[in-house]
Amino acid sequence: MNPPRRRTSQPPTNLQMSDIARLAGVSESTVSRALKDSPLIAASTRERIRRLAEEAGYVVNPVASSLRSRQSGVITVAVPLVHAREPHLFDPFMMTMLAHLADALGDRGYNMLLAKIAVHQDGWVRRLQQPGRSDGVILIGQSSEHAAINEAARTGIPLTAWGTRMPAQKYPVVGTDNRLGGQLGTEHLIRHGRRRIAFLGDERLPEVAHRHDGYRQALRAAGLKAHPDLLVRSPFSSGDAYASVRALIDGGADFDGVMAASDVIAISAIRAITESGRRVPQDVSVVGFDDILLAEHAHPPLTTVRQELAQGAVKLVDTVIAAIRGEQAESTILPPTLIVRASA
Amino acid sequence: MNPPRRRTSQPPTNLQMSDIARLAGVSESTVSRALKDSPLIAASTRERIRRLAEEAGYVVNPVASSLRSRQSGVITVAVPLVHAREPHLFDPFMMTMLAHLADALGDRGYNMLLAKIAVHQDGWVRRLQQPGRSDGVILIGQSSEHAAINEAARTGIPLTAWGTRMPAQKYPVVGTDNRLGGQLGTEHLIRHGRRRIAFLGDERLPEVAHRHDGYRQALRAAGLKAHPDLLVRSPFSSGDAYASVRALIDGGADFDGVMAASDVIAISAIRAITESGRRVPQDVSVVGFDDILLAEHAHPPLTTVRQELAQGAVKLVDTVIAAIRGEQAESTILPPTLIVRASA
Repeated sequence: MNPPRRRTSQPPTNLQMSDIARLAGVSESTVSRALKDSPLIAASTRERIRRLAEEAGYVVNPVASSLRSRQSGVITVAVPLVHAREPHLFDPFMMTMLAHLADALGDRGYNMLLAKIAVHQDGWVRRLQQPGRSDGVILIGQSSEHAAINEAARTGIPLTAWGTRMPAQKYPVVGTDNRLGGQLGTEHLIRHGRRRIAFLGDERLPEVAHRHDGYRQALRAAGLKAHPDLLVRSPFSSGDAYASVRALIDGGADFDGVMAASDVIAISAIRAITESGRRVPQDVSVVGFDDILLAEHAHPPLTTVRQELAQGAVKLVDTVIAAIRGEQAESTILPPTLIVRASA
Repeated sequence: MNPPRRRTSQPPTNLQMSDIARLAGVSESTVSRALKDSPLIAASTRERIRRLAEEAGYVVNPVASSLRSRQSGVITVAVPLVHAREPHLFDPFMMTMLAHLADALGDRGYNMLLAKIAVHQDGWVRRLQQPGRSDGVILIGQSSEHAAINEAARTGIPLTAWGTRMPAQKYPVVGTDNRLGGQLGTEHLIRHGRRRIAFLGDERLPEVAHRHDGYRQALRAAGLKAHPDLLVRSPFSSGDAYASVRALIDGGADFDGVMAASDVIAISAIRAITESGRRVPQDVSVVGFDDILLAEHAHPPLTTVRQELAQGAVKLVDTVIAAIRGEQAESTILPPTLIVRASA
């Protein structure tokens, strides 16, 4: 049995952390640490501050504390999957980004309202922003919806997107230098003697388009050709990527290197290549993109272009908060890093 | 430039899917499929229905459509991490569960409001349920908060939790038969000749307590002893788990088997064991719990007790929806499966 203690059915008060600090005769940071049960604060002090906060009706929980202000304390995180045949969030990249975003939002006292956008409808971006329900919008990816995002941005909604810079862009993005990433990966393949390098990814999506640009630039600089039959418009999902590479192999294509637009595509490609009797990296070298947790555990461990997702998530949150405050919110382009393991 | 088409600044109408079906002269399920762009519906029909829905102002997006009803169209998913030293959602189990929940909620037209609970405060469960903001609450795990959850359940909040059955429980849970899981894993170790089997996990948490019960039951049935010095209260985080096992090894403990309360703990244990110069599974056999995506990619691939997380997420969503509708919501205990790979 849980003994019912103080009943808190009355609305939360307007107490701030500074009020608790004054009552307890300590600094605000001590109150903050004590309520997070930090070992930096003596156990007796923690207990005293916690009891005091509780008696005064101070509410730590951000869902509840947000009620005290006019703002909702909620940021909408929307995943546009309009381009995807099977719009699942159960995907290593997406799960990683969502977890980092939830952690970064939580650190700043926000909850996350997650919306999956599987179908395009006019005005969908604007409708994500409901006064009193959400203070701003973070989009993970631009899908095929750049125009719709731009249109919403013009109406003044505080929003930002994970993605890539686009022409006449009206919203700040946070993302990786995708051209440089595609170039770094392809240059690595060329340095290891690869000459017929396939590109796996749907270059009609903004980020993939830039990765593909970098790939072509690296080939051009080395005097090599981007063979049109080695551009495979592979979707991001594992099963579809595997099928795309099987079709390439079964069609008799001749290739000795793979620049993949994601790690999931790269890992699926390795499976298709080894099943066809060729070895990675001896016969075909494979480079991925993202550096998901799985990459270093793949067989062979995956050489890949790393995106800084944890840092990107923090930037997305800071950017949307700046937009909410009416500050000028700038785009952030993070540098990619080539991580060399065994697959190339 | 995105050509501005129909402006939708007027509030959404009360159109239902049935209205569109009547207008189009097709069934509701055809409308639903067409708006999801299902290949089961002819492309021309999809286009006709979509255009018709758009002209009529029918809104598919659940954030917007929920405004039309009194309900919010939002389920709060809260992660109590009161027990955790570093309450991160960037964790393979948590990410998997969140992605499956988001997918299952999306399939039923709900958005997900994600709240991370790092600090206990009286009444926190009740405060998650805000009329007009959220229709019900799903908790991922019970942390050390069973009493608080029970107290909230008594007030009639529609809620369910991923977890395990507890005494005098007033809320439905969805979870794995953790006793059976602990037993299956430990029996497998015993069958392979292991006699001094360590248990890694904090048995003060409800689910882990039951896994530990199963472990002890299997040992007892085989006439073996649960050595108190081989119970390691390892946290779920990878770094802490590694440190716990290092401490066990450095303390000179003699063990030839490990039953871990999670795959992350098991994978961290394998790292600590191999770094100390012993081989897995030749010198020490290791069994995990969960079957996260990483398990089959671990070195060596991890033998583990699989939890059906995708199925569990769907059950959690169905259970909270039943509770919202005022129906009797029952607990669901899913059977675990032993997945034998190379680590034991």
